Amino acid sequence: MALIVQKFGGTSVGSTDKIKAVAQRVIKNHLQGNRMVVVLSAMSGETDRLTGLANAIQRIPDSREMDMLLATGEQVTVALFAMAIKEAGFDAISLLGDQVAIHTDNMHTKARIASIDSELIEKYLDQGKIVTIAGFQGVTDQGDITTLGRGGSDTTAVALAAAMQADACEIFTDVEGVYTTDPNICPQARKIDRISYDEMLELASLGAKVLDIRSVGLAKRYNVPVHVRSTFSENIGTWVVEEEKIMESMLVSGITYSKKEARITIKKVPDQPGIAAKIFLPISDAGILVDMIIQNTTDGKLTDMTFTVPRTDYDRAMDILKEVAEEIGAEAVSGDKDIAKVSIVGVGMRNHPGIASTMFQILAKEGINMMMVSTSEIKVSCIIAEKYTELAVRALHDAFALDKENLPLEEE
Amino acid sequence: MALIVQKFGGTSVGSTDKIKAVAQRVIKNHLQGNRMVVVLSAMSGETDRLTGLANAIQRIPDSREMDMLLATGEQVTVALFAMAIKEAGFDAISLLGDQVAIHTDNMHTKARIASIDSELIEKYLDQGKIVTIAGFQGVTDQGDITTLGRGGSDTTAVALAAAMQADACEIFTDVEGVYTTDPNICPQARKIDRISYDEMLELASLGAKVLDIRSVGLAKRYNVPVHVRSTFSENIGTWVVEEEKIMESMLVSGITYSKKEARITIKKVPDQPGIAAKIFLPISDAGILVDMIIQNTTDGKLTDMTFTVPRTDYDRAMDILKEVAEEIGAEAVSGDKDIAKVSIVGVGMRNHPGIASTMFQILAKEGINMMMVSTSEIKVSCIIAEKYTELAVRALHDAFALDKENLPLEEE
Repeated sequence: MALIVQKFGGTSVGSTDKIKAVAQRVIKNHLQGNRMVVVLSAMSGETDRLTGLANAIQRIPDSREMDMLLATGEQVTVALFAMAIKEAGFDAISLLGDQVAIHTDNMHTKARIASIDSELIEKYLDQGKIVTIAGFQGVTDQGDITTLGRGGSDTTAVALAAAMQADACEIFTDVEGVYTTDPNICPQARKIDRISYDEMLELASLGAKVLDIRSVGLAKRYNVPVHVRSTFSENIGTWVVEEEKIMESMLVSGITYSKKEARITIKKVPDQPGIAAKIFLPISDAGILVDMIIQNTTDGKLTDMTFTVPRTDYDRAMDILKEVAEEIGAEAVSGDKDIAKVSIVGVGMRNHPGIASTMFQILAKEGINMMMVSTSEIKVSCIIAEKYTELAVRALHDAFALDKENLPLEEE
Repeated sequence: MALIVQKFGGTSVGSTDKIKAVAQRVIKNHLQGNRMVVVLSAMSGETDRLTGLANAIQRIPDSREMDMLLATGEQVTVALFAMAIKEAGFDAISLLGDQVAIHTDNMHTKARIASIDSELIEKYLDQGKIVTIAGFQGVTDQGDITTLGRGGSDTTAVALAAAMQADACEIFTDVEGVYTTDPNICPQARKIDRISYDEMLELASLGAKVLDIRSVGLAKRYNVPVHVRSTFSENIGTWVVEEEKIMESMLVSGITYSKKEARITIKKVPDQPGIAAKIFLPISDAGILVDMIIQNTTDGKLTDMTFTVPRTDYDRAMDILKEVAEEIGAEAVSGDKDIAKVSIVGVGMRNHPGIASTMFQILAKEGINMMMVSTSEIKVSCIIAEKYTELAVRALHDAFALDKENLPLEEE
């Protein structure tokens, strides 16, 4: 008898009819003899509705009270879902984060899970019940309700699967799985059968929205096999597993892009120790996250600093940096919002040092200029002009033959 | 420094603007040096919305899951209210039934409070916080969420006031207090300054909706002074207090009416021991609440049984009784839905035996026939034809001079 944790997101439970459909799907798995733990998000639109109420009352809503407020969204869904299971003639029970209990730190609105008690869940499973658990929420040692931040229900599901040593954690979503790239701009995009935790981490951090990055990290740490699949079909989706379970890795597994960044350059900065801190401290103090940083020494004494920030923080960052530039005696600050980051990800790169240069060649062949480059062990990211994004993605997808099937793999 | 428990109902917190207005009112009381505990209901319409979702999923919603679902309504309100207090520059914290904790039995959807821990509330009050508590909800010894049924937030407020020995429990509503009768049908109706627990119990059970009957019983048992007053004005409302605190009682304090009942007569029932049980057992087994019962022996062997049931249960009751009548050999079953119950209530009746006959005279003078009469120590109820309801209420109000002021009373 396998223990399966399934997680359904807001669009999957966005109406009473959809909740009934999810219940039918879970019952089918239950009837196959599995012990079922079902993590649910708030009905789509509900979190926005609640946030709207809060914003109408407090300019910067109190984070403890915000968690108190938002946690109701998942509470509604699990209660309705348990009713749907019961209406279909099976037994179910809903549990909240504090009932389980899912213990977290007290960083309200972005809490981290510290530990999970699974006794109560086990007890109800032993009674033959389908157990449904409110995603996204936990409880502090003081008994206050916390929430886990964006994508928190994925984290709840993976953490439960880890704590209970589940046989699988299935994340249901509105797409068929993880794709080699965005099918909307590249029709040749292919669903990936298996992908390693590390690759998925890179893809998630580079903007693939199908799985929350924190949940991938957790899955990797506790070696939880995660199956990303569609709520609306019975097809096998993408398994996120440890690298050893993937028999033949592709050189490049996926291509991502992001149009959410902007580039800033400070020209002719005096090249002295501590100068970088002087530039980046005021930026991080303002809560602005800097991504890629490149320093280029033009002569012995002066250097150009280029880096990217979220596009939404661009104007604020420019204001801060104009002051800083004056202080430190830099020549000028310039920037560009019309950029995109295109990245290739694959564990196969580790043993093939030529991948990056292949990427540069492909872009060059299309006449696309690279403004910045950043690499990690299994990823190469390039900053290019935004208008070339789709062209670059399609060219790379084609050149690395991502539309071709993987070699046949053992099925789980 | 007085401890005041205030309760605001769904219409008082029905929008973010109204929540802000309630916050301002509470802050005013806080600034006067009072320790403030604020019990809130769900925003108006929210409970109906949630019930609608449940009904779309399960024909008879599971009661445990229904409590899980409905408890979110109050949770939303207290979170928003705490934000409103903070936005105004004061400190507040929200607590749920299980956080307080408000311990109840496990009768889901109509749980009864067993005990209340007030340590956490006291702690936060000592820190200078305004403490807001979700009404209507509690928690079982097993950690399951319960709700207290209709009017449950009133009960939460009175129970908290009792447990914490509050100086007052203020129930805010959309009317100015308790009236001598319904102002909609009797413009001379007057707001009552003070009323005893017993009178309020009778009025509440007879259909005055301003205060839930369970909360009145609780207030009486623990001698909690309850102040029923308007959310929308600063006027003194009605104090519900022990009888001894009312210096000069009115003979009749209030007049109520109800159009929610129907009358059923079983004619010529064999007058044998056990016959009443044969009639009423199937009725109570069907969950139908019988109110007034009159037995009238016509000759030595046969008797007529007349009683009232809720009008909504009339058809079901008639079906059951037609079978019963055949079994026990009664002659016929007849009924009448177009009736009303008009009642006069007042502790002064105890020492004035003539009140009932005065009532009968007044109704007779108006040509109103009484079909049934039932009395208690401080109440007389008559069943009359529904069409005479308003006429009867106005005539009684006038005859007992309820539009005249009470004698001046000490103010609290």
